[in-house]
Amino acid sequence: MTDGIVFERMALIGIGNLGSSIARAVRERGLVGTIAVADFSDRALARAAELGLGDSYDESPAEAVKDADLVVICTPIGTYGAIAEGIAPHLKPGAVLTDVGSVKQAVISAVQPHVPDGVHFIPGHPIAGTEKSGPDAGSGALFEGRFWILTPLEGTAPEPLARLETLWTRCGALVEELPAAYHDKVLAVTSHLPHLIAYTIVGTAFDLEEQEQRDVIRFSAGGFRDFTRIAGSNPIMWRDIFLNNREAVLEMLQRFSEDLSYLQRAIRWGEGDKLQELFTKTREIRRGVIEANQARPFPYGTSGNGNGK
Amino acid sequence: MTDGIVFERMALIGIGNLGSSIARAVRERGLVGTIAVADFSDRALARAAELGLGDSYDESPAEAVKDADLVVICTPIGTYGAIAEGIAPHLKPGAVLTDVGSVKQAVISAVQPHVPDGVHFIPGHPIAGTEKSGPDAGSGALFEGRFWILTPLEGTAPEPLARLETLWTRCGALVEELPAAYHDKVLAVTSHLPHLIAYTIVGTAFDLEEQEQRDVIRFSAGGFRDFTRIAGSNPIMWRDIFLNNREAVLEMLQRFSEDLSYLQRAIRWGEGDKLQELFTKTREIRRGVIEANQARPFPYGTSGNGNGK
Ligand SMILES: NC(=O)c1ccc[n+]([C@@H]2O[C@H](COP(=O)([O-])OP(=O)(O)OC[C@H]3O[C@@H](n4cnc5c(N)ncnc54)[C@H](OP(=O)(O)O)[C@@H]3O)[C@@H](O)[C@H]2O)c1
Ligand SMILES: NC(=O)c1ccc[n+]([C@@H]2O[C@H](COP(=O)([O-])OP(=O)(O)OC[C@H]3O[C@@H](n4cnc5c(N)ncnc54)[C@H](OP(=O)(O)O)[C@@H]3O)[C@@H](O)[C@H]2O)c1
Repeated sequence: MTDGIVFERMALIGIGNLGSSIARAVRERGLVGTIAVADFSDRALARAAELGLGDSYDESPAEAVKDADLVVICTPIGTYGAIAEGIAPHLKPGAVLTDVGSVKQAVISAVQPHVPDGVHFIPGHPIAGTEKSGPDAGSGALFEGRFWILTPLEGTAPEPLARLETLWTRCGALVEELPAAYHDKVLAVTSHLPHLIAYTIVGTAFDLEEQEQRDVIRFSAGGFRDFTRIAGSNPIMWRDIFLNNREAVLEMLQRFSEDLSYLQRAIRWGEGDKLQELFTKTREIRRGVIEANQARPFPYGTSGNGNGK
Repeated sequence: MTDGIVFERMALIGIGNLGSSIARAVRERGLVGTIAVADFSDRALARAAELGLGDSYDESPAEAVKDADLVVICTPIGTYGAIAEGIAPHLKPGAVLTDVGSVKQAVISAVQPHVPDGVHFIPGHPIAGTEKSGPDAGSGALFEGRFWILTPLEGTAPEPLARLETLWTRCGALVEELPAAYHDKVLAVTSHLPHLIAYTIVGTAFDLEEQEQRDVIRFSAGGFRDFTRIAGSNPIMWRDIFLNNREAVLEMLQRFSEDLSYLQRAIRWGEGDKLQELFTKTREIRRGVIEANQARPFPYGTSGNGNGK
């Protein structure tokens, strides 16, 4: 399967940032025969049709999944349970069902009970995306050089798994298999906690008085600007992530708060050596991140330089 | 003064990221006659000479400031008091003394007592820089389109102030005057608190066990990567900033911690509406940042898009 069609008929449920990126990626590379698109939003559907992202457009996911060999759920994860329940009777035997949700254990709990025998449910999460929403936000190049994590359940059949891996690999992604619980823990650190903190600090700035708030925006190049970008992400998607990865997020948040108190105390008491020690340690992690990317020379995002301090 | 030399003889104390950027910026634009460079570090001095950043090189700031019409202190702010004391007897009457330190009130307290009559001390802070250190990290374009804040003391003579503003304006900066206390408060939000938080979260990740830490680095594209960049900044510079802007940083940190506790509680109790409400509000701030930049179409830094989630 190094060229040609990997799945004959694909259904995409949700045609926003992620869904439209997948549509573009597989289209541009000729990896699927036809694409059936479903979305709650009339506007998203109409726009997807204008952009020619699919071959058919439906408000009803149940309609879209009929005869599909591959179904990809690309909606906020709070909707997964109801979607799985709705499409279950219409799934084709032998079909692969996957998703792109940013949390995996909760998704498995919500979806798995509805999956009929003979349908292969393989949960997934591409570590790729932006803070933008909607069908215009997507890009066919989004997955190039990015990790795409799969968290297959025990007993997953090897052929459907290999086929799904082929699809995402041929979209340019680096596919990795991880246990769902481990995924949720690592992502709590690399993504969920950073977003929570960015949301918080931008919210803190929101409560300043008007003139100060205006100047915070004007002088945002000193670090704050990066946080506003993260905190500009889709509110419903992120609400659902925090509600569905509660344990891991709260655990990491607890550790973070303790570490922050330690620094707060060091600042209060003028303990410069403690500050310097930590700030020197964190440089090592930065070096690790740079090396990890250098070892794999692909674009991880354009962020990296030239921000004001 | 729309072209030609603005200051005949400039002394730069500290030839790292900021000092070397200034040297390059004024050189490339022909804004000063000669540049005398001083730095504690032999290596930085030697490298500066290799790069041709100055006309003379000294370990002693006292030597470099002799006959200088403009002296710019570009070292970590913890060194300012001793430097001011050391150069004071050697400053030329009528000279302008300025700096680039990221905190202004503490800098004024440290420097002002040493400034001889007839020397014009005008504290400053360019909102520009990167996380890198040393003479190779600088760029002559660093200040283009960036704010350069001056916090002149009461009674500052208008001519030297205007001349200094001309210099930085002709380096491409947007010069703004602010009261020092107000500067410190706004920067605590836009820069100091974001750095403290980034250092903390990267430190939290450092304490994970080995395998997890490795995967956090591999999957860092989901938000964490931006934090590691910030947390890769110069440890001594940042130690000094926190020690010298203690009150404002602690006040903002207090507010931040309260806001974070509120979110923590909302996650624990599954209060999705509270999360969504905040996440929607923060989008407004993001919009403000984007609009502020669009109103002034210049590069504020390359960070902005395409990071994995
Ligand atoms: N964005 C990222 O960076 C990123 C990265 C990795 C994974 N993910 C995951 O990708 C998923 C989608 O995120 P996204 O950024 O693509 O969001 P998005 O741009 O907002 O797209 C989601 C689309 O799904 C539609 N939708 C919502 N509920 C639905 C339902 N019950 N049935 C059918 N359609 C529904 C939305 O319509 P409305 O607009 O009317 O609500 C919208 O058109 C999330 O689960 C997220 O965790 C996102
Ligand atoms: N980087 C930014 O983003 C940024 C932005 C705005 C303002 N600033 C401000 O700019 C200043 C310098 O930052 P930077 O990023 O340019 O740092 P940097 O690259 O580390 O350069 C500082 C230079 O000063 C030297 N130095 C240290 N103590 C000295 C002393 N007592 N006398 C003479 N030289 C001394 C250092 O030598 P050693 O290496 O031997 O210590 C180094 O060569 C800081 O006050 C900071 O607050 C920085």
